[in-house]
Amino acid sequence: GGEPDIPVSPSPSVFRKFRVDKILREDQRNKLITVVGKFGNEAEKDAVVLVERLPLDKTFVEQALAAEDAMTKETLKNDIYSTHSVYTPRAFPDCKATMIYPATAKHIAKYSEHDAFIVRETPHLYQTVTKPCLDVNKFSVQWVHNILEKKTEADRIVFEDPDPETGFILLPDMKWNRTDLDSLYLVAIVHKHGVHSMRHLTAQHLPLLKNVLEKGKKAIKGQFGIPSSKLRIYFHYQPSYSHLHVHFTHVKFDAPGSDCLRAHTLEDVIDNLDLDSDFYSKKTLVYVVRENDELYKAYKAATYFDD
Amino acid sequence: GGEPDIPVSPSPSVFRKFRVDKILREDQRNKLITVVGKFGNEAEKDAVVLVERLPLDKTFVEQALAAEDAMTKETLKNDIYSTHSVYTPRAFPDCKATMIYPATAKHIAKYSEHDAFIVRETPHLYQTVTKPCLDVNKFSVQWVHNILEKKTEADRIVFEDPDPETGFILLPDMKWNRTDLDSLYLVAIVHKHGVHSMRHLTAQHLPLLKNVLEKGKKAIKGQFGIPSSKLRIYFHYQPSYSHLHVHFTHVKFDAPGSDCLRAHTLEDVIDNLDLDSDFYSKKTLVYVVRENDELYKAYKAATYFDD
Repeated sequence: GGEPDIPVSPSPSVFRKFRVDKILREDQRNKLITVVGKFGNEAEKDAVVLVERLPLDKTFVEQALAAEDAMTKETLKNDIYSTHSVYTPRAFPDCKATMIYPATAKHIAKYSEHDAFIVRETPHLYQTVTKPCLDVNKFSVQWVHNILEKKTEADRIVFEDPDPETGFILLPDMKWNRTDLDSLYLVAIVHKHGVHSMRHLTAQHLPLLKNVLEKGKKAIKGQFGIPSSKLRIYFHYQPSYSHLHVHFTHVKFDAPGSDCLRAHTLEDVIDNLDLDSDFYSKKTLVYVVRENDELYKAYKAATYFDD
Repeated sequence: GGEPDIPVSPSPSVFRKFRVDKILREDQRNKLITVVGKFGNEAEKDAVVLVERLPLDKTFVEQALAAEDAMTKETLKNDIYSTHSVYTPRAFPDCKATMIYPATAKHIAKYSEHDAFIVRETPHLYQTVTKPCLDVNKFSVQWVHNILEKKTEADRIVFEDPDPETGFILLPDMKWNRTDLDSLYLVAIVHKHGVHSMRHLTAQHLPLLKNVLEKGKKAIKGQFGIPSSKLRIYFHYQPSYSHLHVHFTHVKFDAPGSDCLRAHTLEDVIDNLDLDSDFYSKKTLVYVVRENDELYKAYKAATYFDD
């Protein structure tokens, strides 16, 4: 965080001769920017540089903001309200930079922002565009089977119901550090094979879904003390791998993929199947694809975006 | 942004004598912190201070990161990857501070984070807890009627369909600056009175909903050149005011309230009503309430959170 790096022994910036060729990604809200550029002439190799502002904490406010050599400039004053530009003392770093050098075209593509497009997937579009594309670009889910068979990650299991039809394994998502409860992120992977996504669910899966909901909530309450009133419980559509799994995240955590264009609460899915067993074979599902996704390419080839 | 404030004439920090009493809100991802504290002894009045890191832009990378007196410190090096702490030259501010001084208990409450709880509102809970609470705590929607009658904001209207049953007024949300298309945010307010929220929709509203969807998309394409494949179109439940309205935001904009626990795409709502006219009078709706909300108090009084 904002702690002073003592002893402070920074050197003149490694970026002094860096020239920006192109912005790859810019995020005002999260205060980060990714650029590609060069340190020398045109013949020089590319460098990808990600610069991100450092987060603020209590130490920063108490030490950096109140330091003898901190400076401020009032930019607005209206009654009890005022705004100030803050010049933090040099002893405190204000950004973190990550550099990939030399960077190949592949690195540049990886760190570039990919344009997003919304697909409204009718059942017909699922059959004619999505399914053929997913069939061709199938990724192996062997790693999921390894988890279910306890060949890997067995020590990470938080809870298991071994029933082959309604059971599941609950374990921490890679994005969770397993200590900060406010950013709790667990995933329930069902034992049943062959259910590729939410699109394939029918009323026959209700015992499975209700079991995941109830036992998942109970296990998290028991092991982490977090009640269900703090849990966002949902599927992704499209999912990132084609073996049915459910996300459990803390409501305080602004989890990636919890947007209404990707997340569908498990309670909604159960409700909808209770109402109509064929709900998801009739439903139009709305989601985002990105320029580098195979699904984007498939929809583009089907002239879907030509409106 | 990262542009140098020239002529730079900051003074010694106004926060030099500031002592933090309590953190009100901390957001690591958005790099901001809000605290309450004092400038003098215990008798001194409170000050609320919001500190937020400044966003980064191309100018920052080209000028601040590459400046003669910029400093960096390598913190990790592995093959082509390296990370660096960055010490921006003093000519560039790194934060913006907003101060409310003197601050009352009301200001402190306003800037505090309020604990979030998830409600799973069954039709029965709607009738017994939600509705009585909303009836008592009704806010006036006179300001909405003023817009519909063009008594206010008439110059801001982007599009209007005047039909009293299926028509609506489309205008920019306050959160949008009206120039940056990537953060486009428009709201369609329906002319029809008396539809308080999504909960009250039936198949009889389908002509209205389909009209808002089609004409809203067309108007945004016509006036801003943004195709529907870039538009997130949704209701909030609970909404912030009880006159039916639809949000249109750019898919690139991580709009507040687009989480699956609050946003319901208009396409989903239309689909569901096409399937079953009474869908929303049977449906459990899942959403977040905060400690300072009347709805939270009503659910707490009904011992809903005692699990």
